[in-house]
Amino acid sequence: MKQEQPFEKSEIILTGDRATGPLHLGHYVGSLKQRVSLQWMHEQTILVADMQGLTDNAHNPTKVSSNILNVVADYLAVGIEPTQTTICLQSQLPALAELTMYYSNLVSIARLERNPTVKSEIKSKSFGRSIPTGFFTYPISQAADITAFKATLIPVGDDQLPMLEQTNEIVRKVNKLAGKKILDECRPLLSNAPRLPSTDGKNKMSKTMGNAINLGASEKEISAAVKAMYTDPSHLRVEDPGQVDGNIVFTYLDAFHPDKKYIDGLKSHYKQGGLGDGTTKKILEECLQDMLRPIREKRAEYLNDKAQLINILKKGSKSARENSEKVLFDVRGIFGLNIF
Amino acid sequence: MKQEQPFEKSEIILTGDRATGPLHLGHYVGSLKQRVSLQWMHEQTILVADMQGLTDNAHNPTKVSSNILNVVADYLAVGIEPTQTTICLQSQLPALAELTMYYSNLVSIARLERNPTVKSEIKSKSFGRSIPTGFFTYPISQAADITAFKATLIPVGDDQLPMLEQTNEIVRKVNKLAGKKILDECRPLLSNAPRLPSTDGKNKMSKTMGNAINLGASEKEISAAVKAMYTDPSHLRVEDPGQVDGNIVFTYLDAFHPDKKYIDGLKSHYKQGGLGDGTTKKILEECLQDMLRPIREKRAEYLNDKAQLINILKKGSKSARENSEKVLFDVRGIFGLNIF
Repeated sequence: MKQEQPFEKSEIILTGDRATGPLHLGHYVGSLKQRVSLQWMHEQTILVADMQGLTDNAHNPTKVSSNILNVVADYLAVGIEPTQTTICLQSQLPALAELTMYYSNLVSIARLERNPTVKSEIKSKSFGRSIPTGFFTYPISQAADITAFKATLIPVGDDQLPMLEQTNEIVRKVNKLAGKKILDECRPLLSNAPRLPSTDGKNKMSKTMGNAINLGASEKEISAAVKAMYTDPSHLRVEDPGQVDGNIVFTYLDAFHPDKKYIDGLKSHYKQGGLGDGTTKKILEECLQDMLRPIREKRAEYLNDKAQLINILKKGSKSARENSEKVLFDVRGIFGLNIF
Repeated sequence: MKQEQPFEKSEIILTGDRATGPLHLGHYVGSLKQRVSLQWMHEQTILVADMQGLTDNAHNPTKVSSNILNVVADYLAVGIEPTQTTICLQSQLPALAELTMYYSNLVSIARLERNPTVKSEIKSKSFGRSIPTGFFTYPISQAADITAFKATLIPVGDDQLPMLEQTNEIVRKVNKLAGKKILDECRPLLSNAPRLPSTDGKNKMSKTMGNAINLGASEKEISAAVKAMYTDPSHLRVEDPGQVDGNIVFTYLDAFHPDKKYIDGLKSHYKQGGLGDGTTKKILEECLQDMLRPIREKRAEYLNDKAQLINILKKGSKSARENSEKVLFDVRGIFGLNIF
């Protein structure tokens, strides 16, 4: 399904996911939908970040390896087109590790310790000083990823902005050493989609918490997830007025139901009283079932043909490898090491 | 000058030097002489550590790049045989950077902070927390170097023993994850040569201090260095008895003069009195001039044919690259990432 390109693609975009679990509705709203449209306008590369996934899973590596093809199937199922988007695997691109080594010499330990994103992740994972070195230093590795593709536009949440700052600091240091512009600074592309809450309304979505609906969720799983969804705990009888704010069913209806006007009507009714959670959940379930059915089916088809998935990843990685080697050549040149 | 191999070479040895300056007499006594004999008994690889040299010289990279061929010429001039020893360049071996990334996930920041060698280097270089990340993490990178060649015997000074401990810890973790022996533990080969003092008797030898005699030193430089050498400051008149201990001229005579008995006689004479520093220095100078003349000449010949030097380094790096890629394949396999 190759489309005509009526214009030059304008920017280079790098996005990606740690391959540590199948993707879910949070990813869909927060990034995948956006990537599907971005791919027609921009040179988009999606990096399946298996190496980064290992930075805090080295002792449980199947959590990463078993999810690589799942994630690729998720991409294809939602409409990422391998003819438009380069899908590649981090561990297949040695230039990323090499660039990380060069950049490591330009970033102090003190600078890494100041990184707010790493700080809060250390805290949330209760790492303390026992943090794996690879995890602690991953902002440098991310700078390698971004610069290896000459990416200028990076779709991120605002919690990731310090990562782009770190990248741009490295870019400026490299360019200063080179005495000319070798690398490009990047800009964030902030998503306007609000973060989708977990189905229990409590935590960040995660597979292990069982509070996320995966893109490959079965009909039964979707049904069970919607039935268990957090609503308004004080809305005990159908005739009581109900709260819409913080009611996850309505948050999901806002995010996924195509008919905004209809949902506005439902909200008024719910607030007045007389609309039960059973009914709103039924409406949400139908909407999610309709949306996820074709995605689930496509996903299963792709996963039934692993050779094809591997082939897409291989082809993408080959092209990414060539591009990243060119950047490595330039960076190595600054250090006078292109001897042969 | 290929020699017959009457026996299987017994162990795999990895040695190397940071390419941050030309090699001097300290290197000659401390490691180069040993390497020349080891190469006939063992599979020896010498890694020209340009990447490691950059860990604290990224802002002055020519200090590294301009010394790579000098160091290779030093090797060849003292008798390292490229037919017997693989001489390779660290930056040409991407598997080393990739292994470093994998191993980084198995070593905590706390563990690196406890490394006594790094601790004392941080202190001596007054880095504090502004230490470059690449320098702080170089024990992991050294583990990558050692394991990438399956080296089992590592010639080191005892200040480097913590590095081998760190390597073996990583080896055990990798093997445990693999459930079988993938990597070999290494043992130190401690040199029995005492550390050669600097010509001023004060500091560690270094080119910038001007207190070392380089292997490529000119006749005049050797002469000047010996004339300025630290002796016994209380030995004012020829007829006075003199101190041999701490007298750098005698330390160098011990290290380099072929006739031990003659030197013993000189020492007795000096202690009794009646032997002037002018005379001992003349003897030392003649000895060093004789020893360094052929080395200097060979070194200059090699440096006159840079294409040949590059070729040796290229050939060695190609073979090292192949071997290191095999180890990388095994390590990547543990993490389930040999997908294609």
